[in-house]
Amino acid sequence: MTNRKIKILCIGGSLRKGSYNRSLLETGLLMKSAQELCPEIAELEVFDRLGEFPLFNQDLEGDPPAVIKEFKAKIKAADAILFVTPEYNYSIPGFLKNAIDWASRPYTDSSFNDKPGAIMSASTGMLGGARAQYVLRQVCVQLNVHLLNRPEVFVADVAEKVQAGILSDTHTKEKIRELLDALCVWTMRLTKD
Amino acid sequence: MTNRKIKILCIGGSLRKGSYNRSLLETGLLMKSAQELCPEIAELEVFDRLGEFPLFNQDLEGDPPAVIKEFKAKIKAADAILFVTPEYNYSIPGFLKNAIDWASRPYTDSSFNDKPGAIMSASTGMLGGARAQYVLRQVCVQLNVHLLNRPEVFVADVAEKVQAGILSDTHTKEKIRELLDALCVWTMRLTKD
Amino acid sequence: MTNRKIKILCIGGSLRKGSYNRSLLETGLLMKSAQELCPEIAELEVFDRLGEFPLFNQDLEGDPPAVIKEFKAKIKAADAILFVTPEYNYSIPGFLKNAIDWASRPYTDSSFNDKPGAIMSASTGMLGGARAQYVLRQVCVQLNVHLLNRPEVFVADVAEKVQAGILSDTHTKEKIRELLDALCVWTMRLTKD
Amino acid sequence: MTNRKIKILCIGGSLRKGSYNRSLLETGLLMKSAQELCPEIAELEVFDRLGEFPLFNQDLEGDPPAVIKEFKAKIKAADAILFVTPEYNYSIPGFLKNAIDWASRPYTDSSFNDKPGAIMSASTGMLGGARAQYVLRQVCVQLNVHLLNRPEVFVADVAEKVQAGILSDTHTKEKIRELLDALCVWTMRLTKD
Repeated sequence: MTNRKIKILCIGGSLRKGSYNRSLLETGLLMKSAQELCPEIAELEVFDRLGEFPLFNQDLEGDPPAVIKEFKAKIKAADAILFVTPEYNYSIPGFLKNAIDWASRPYTDSSFNDKPGAIMSASTGMLGGARAQYVLRQVCVQLNVHLLNRPEVFVADVAEKVQAGILSDTHTKEKIRELLDALCVWTMRLTKD
Repeated sequence: MTNRKIKILCIGGSLRKGSYNRSLLETGLLMKSAQELCPEIAELEVFDRLGEFPLFNQDLEGDPPAVIKEFKAKIKAADAILFVTPEYNYSIPGFLKNAIDWASRPYTDSSFNDKPGAIMSASTGMLGGARAQYVLRQVCVQLNVHLLNRPEVFVADVAEKVQAGILSDTHTKEKIRELLDALCVWTMRLTKD
Repeated sequence: MTNRKIKILCIGGSLRKGSYNRSLLETGLLMKSAQELCPEIAELEVFDRLGEFPLFNQDLEGDPPAVIKEFKAKIKAADAILFVTPEYNYSIPGFLKNAIDWASRPYTDSSFNDKPGAIMSASTGMLGGARAQYVLRQVCVQLNVHLLNRPEVFVADVAEKVQAGILSDTHTKEKIRELLDALCVWTMRLTKD
Repeated sequence: MTNRKIKILCIGGSLRKGSYNRSLLETGLLMKSAQELCPEIAELEVFDRLGEFPLFNQDLEGDPPAVIKEFKAKIKAADAILFVTPEYNYSIPGFLKNAIDWASRPYTDSSFNDKPGAIMSASTGMLGGARAQYVLRQVCVQLNVHLLNRPEVFVADVAEKVQAGILSDTHTKEKIRELLDALCVWTMRLTKD
């Protein structure tokens, strides 16, 4: 890793289909911010096509649709994973869990195995998606993703922190930058030879 | 409720598309057993079309596809909900969470609001889906489903408990029957006038 | 219950030993507020002697120390339980878990069995003790406490909501009152004959 | 670490006071087994005096009782932490949470900060303490302990796996050995310079 940038794959909601889902829009903005705030030593690629996935079908797990093959390939090629999630019903959204279910199968070829990782979440309420994060942490035990413990980024009242389509809250941007820095350090620590 | 049967809606994986997904097949068998073991005072209807749902789209939450309208109507018409779930990646499957996300929206018209409920789970491993159950319990706080505490039905090593397409394990059948009895008592307790 | 008040037992941190533990002081203030805001149809008794309990010893579970006997008797005599908890290390404090462990033993004589209940929490951080609440909810499945789903009371930044030794934040007081009202309705629903 | 053994501190229930608490006895046996099965490159010290701790008192956190000072010093001196826990009421026991609360305070001097770690649990039931493990995992996020994801050791039906005061089940011993091996690899990965 010494001579090249750390590759962070950012997995979350889509901006593609416009503003149809407010919480996806907002996590999309978090992902965009993460890309802009990414430290020099790393590059952050956003994967936002989770909305195109069919529901998981075990019969196809060995030869999934092209978009899922691409997703798995990108995860495997990444040095670290950054999950960006809204909170639906006190957990992660069905579409995110569905994407994780695809990428983790077949079990002997789970894309996430042994990757360093981190989580950011956002909500319009006061908890900033905290409940979703702890469920995702439990999922990551099975995925064998090594999650960063600190800092934790919970973006509460996210609607108030966005202006004219960009994340404008200074404190939130500082926290995102801290998280990215810590994820780079953590990734180097886990992968240095 | 005095003059009619308690209506239990059983929500879980599908048997329709054959055996393509082993864990769905197995939860499908649990649902079938639940139907057969249902006490006289109740009737249990299985809803197994979760695999037909598109991924949740907030833009359509007020006027969702027909299959989701039917799902929401059935939940509202039910006296109690019985969730039957496999465990994917230490949580509930994406397809189940996706169905719950649809049925809970818009927030002011959440189908699950104030329903009595219970959970059964199955896995090929030793924990019988326990991790999925506690995530689903957290989800049910937001849904305002009043879950039964006892008995808990975790069907471990489920593959060994099925013979010739039916659930053959006596102990498991007893536990399912106990759960159904307890759910009926709990439903009557919460709804008696 | 028709001719007498609903008896709510409020379990939480102690004020007795002065201000030695800030988070206990703050939950103590929540308990005091709950007592003052308790609706006419109920009476709320505070049990704040958890700090006097020895660590749980299974050998004594059948004949525990006097303070624990008193605790168990009060739980059994109550119509409903209100837990008030700070958050220590993303869970409930050791002293609260220890008290619950005592009261739940022996298993055949668990004091909490079949009680309606509710939770309030407070923290100096932004999450208001949310992580502690969901752990306590999982504990309550085993205790067979029937917890209210709504409203949830998370008192964030609690230090800013207290003035001259009393809880002064109007919004928080409204939420506490709502919780108490809902707990009374829930208790009557579960116990009406 | 190259020229010395990896120091693993094993934290759990006590055997000192005899068999007064069956679940402590059983976790004590797991700890003893871990000591015996410890790979050559490591040494495992058992700390089993959690039962001597008073309940946490914030006033004393800067200058706690001697046994707690010793506990904190041992944690800091360790290269890795192995938690061994029974499950009480679907979570970790009060006595273990109380010990963690002491060792994590004051926040600026948390003994656990940045340590590699692992968890084993045992129960007389079928789940082997799984529920306690996931609560402890959440606690470890705040402690900033970097927990191993795999293997997970849940010792179900523990009473049947013990004979004449020693752990006799071969499969369980193999799993413990695997866990210790993996913890050594994980510790070296996180600490190599």
